Amino acid sequence: MTFIIKQLYRLSFSFEVDHKDPFSKARSGRLHTPRGVINTPIFMPVGTVASVKGIHMQELREVIQAEIILANTYHLYLRPGLEVISSAGGIHEFNSWHQPLLTDSGGYQVYSLGKNRQISEKGVEFRSHIDGSKHFFTPESVIDIQRTIGADIIMAFDECTPYPCEESYARDSMHMTHRWLDRCRDRFDSTEPIYDYEQCLAPIVQGSVYEDLRKQSAEYIASKGAPINAIGGLSVGEPDDEMYAMVALVNEILPQDKPRYLMGVGTPANLLENIALGIDMFDCVLPSRNARHGMLYTHAGIINIRNEKWKRDYSPIDEDSLAATSQQHSKAYLRHLFLSKELLAGQIATLQNLTFYLQLVSMARKKIHQGDFKAWKEKATLRYSQRL
Amino acid sequence: MTFIIKQLYRLSFSFEVDHKDPFSKARSGRLHTPRGVINTPIFMPVGTVASVKGIHMQELREVIQAEIILANTYHLYLRPGLEVISSAGGIHEFNSWHQPLLTDSGGYQVYSLGKNRQISEKGVEFRSHIDGSKHFFTPESVIDIQRTIGADIIMAFDECTPYPCEESYARDSMHMTHRWLDRCRDRFDSTEPIYDYEQCLAPIVQGSVYEDLRKQSAEYIASKGAPINAIGGLSVGEPDDEMYAMVALVNEILPQDKPRYLMGVGTPANLLENIALGIDMFDCVLPSRNARHGMLYTHAGIINIRNEKWKRDYSPIDEDSLAATSQQHSKAYLRHLFLSKELLAGQIATLQNLTFYLQLVSMARKKIHQGDFKAWKEKATLRYSQRL
Repeated sequence: MTFIIKQLYRLSFSFEVDHKDPFSKARSGRLHTPRGVINTPIFMPVGTVASVKGIHMQELREVIQAEIILANTYHLYLRPGLEVISSAGGIHEFNSWHQPLLTDSGGYQVYSLGKNRQISEKGVEFRSHIDGSKHFFTPESVIDIQRTIGADIIMAFDECTPYPCEESYARDSMHMTHRWLDRCRDRFDSTEPIYDYEQCLAPIVQGSVYEDLRKQSAEYIASKGAPINAIGGLSVGEPDDEMYAMVALVNEILPQDKPRYLMGVGTPANLLENIALGIDMFDCVLPSRNARHGMLYTHAGIINIRNEKWKRDYSPIDEDSLAATSQQHSKAYLRHLFLSKELLAGQIATLQNLTFYLQLVSMARKKIHQGDFKAWKEKATLRYSQRL
Repeated sequence: MTFIIKQLYRLSFSFEVDHKDPFSKARSGRLHTPRGVINTPIFMPVGTVASVKGIHMQELREVIQAEIILANTYHLYLRPGLEVISSAGGIHEFNSWHQPLLTDSGGYQVYSLGKNRQISEKGVEFRSHIDGSKHFFTPESVIDIQRTIGADIIMAFDECTPYPCEESYARDSMHMTHRWLDRCRDRFDSTEPIYDYEQCLAPIVQGSVYEDLRKQSAEYIASKGAPINAIGGLSVGEPDDEMYAMVALVNEILPQDKPRYLMGVGTPANLLENIALGIDMFDCVLPSRNARHGMLYTHAGIINIRNEKWKRDYSPIDEDSLAATSQQHSKAYLRHLFLSKELLAGQIATLQNLTFYLQLVSMARKKIHQGDFKAWKEKATLRYSQRL
């Protein structure tokens, strides 16, 4: 009986491609999860500690229209800690976000810690950025932690290589990431969900910017037959063209009938170019972090709202935004809030940027349906990259 | 014609007392303004720079159900500056708050500047807290500034004496505040609104904690026949009983048929005690500032949400709150947001406290209507003052 239920649950992670763009590799589709359907291509707002900074859950659902959000294993493990989340009944009960949620495995966060961590075959020893306490993550423990957190989609533990990276280091690291993946899968397959819903495990392609490594890694990951495949280790400082070249190469190998998730990417232009290469899922701190610094992505272009030029500009923040706050409030008012260091500044700006990102992928889906994605992408890339 | 319109506008600031509590001086009523009706007793959330920190305008209207908010002349004059507000068409056009708004005259802010200001009969010279630049406020210029800001209710320029304060200083200061009031009124009466709505000027009773001074000041203010009368210089450090004694004394003298506004007060208990003494309007930074530090006013009592005791308390923040976020989110989740220094922490906490304050005055009105205000007040004061 348990076995049958488990199989049924697994079936509930499935992907359908609806439309393919005739002039690029772009496709639109639907990722079915036990918690509902995600329309792809999709952007996932980042809620590091189970909260998207400055955004209420209702706004996330109704204004931004997020379909899935991301949280971080590393951060949640340290704070509030697993006991608090498991006593709550899992992350969804804890933060009141009842749509799909994905947890990053901590590979990227550990990479960001620099000299505060030590990587070995067994796993990673690191010091907490909060109190300096010592911790040890292994591929197995990271699966256990994500079981406890209760994310719907959980990521394999990987090493995210820096840029630039010596080829020999990248090769050794990639092989270790592959071995770690097998350990993650073994642990995942030999454990059950803690709460009453199925989870799925997504492996990650690595290989830095080396074609043969990326090819080899993509083949290894593809061979595992996972319901979602991710590409990591990009957007870490390499030129955009190198990123696109790696994505194009990897996407030739990853299965067509599974969603492809490009981790930690990127600008609006990055999203559109990678959608054209066949990417289905994105996450990035860029729109939310830049918002808090006053950099706005709008349908007219990029705005640094702190600039003097907006001082008496009473036009709406973005008249094409679905966010009521961006229609209702002027650039002059938002600038005033930023210069006055008001909390509301970051709130209104984050609503603007995340709503823009979700409108962008929604428009991309629409254009793919209509068959004119490619032509739209060229114009949209120029317009959304220009600085006003 | 202009004269007739002006008279009509002035009529539109009027006050009706609906119910009087038989066991105290509490009363409920309606303050009519050109921008709509304000039910009294009322609490006015503080939006220092034309934004209530952490709160969207829609939340202010629909969740907190604010009927009037307060902004500060001193802060708005310095930033964004009068030119930005007047080009926008006044404060309501600038910040998109279209219900009544009151501006504090700057007397209290100037008092807070301590040694960065010098008071003389002519006015106050002060240095900006932002860039150290020198400015000079006079009773006349403060009226001009508030005309330009475009608040519906504008406050006379006064000196707010500190506590404790020598009687001789308090007496001299009170007389100067009275002379300043006459200069404010002369300027107000000889100028027209800049925008297409009438404003009203509210004078302020001073006199520190000296009975004869408070009596003298209340008589002077009462003689002016203003549509709203304010009491300033309290809640500056004196014991609560001294505040209540002064309010009781002053309220005997201020006209019964005009609303009485107690400035800068206070805790939930302070509100209820002063309502019992006949106060109709309040403003205070306490609920919003304390919220940002994790101190919550709830229907069960006062909570320091950062305490360890809430770590795994998954009960709602305040199950009797009209704020959906306080029903939906647990104490454990809000504590986690505070410890993680998330923007959302201050947002949810401010919604809690301001909604609580508006629910409190709404309940006070209901109890006054029902005739059982006094009995309710005794219980509510105890309950809402207890620390959980």
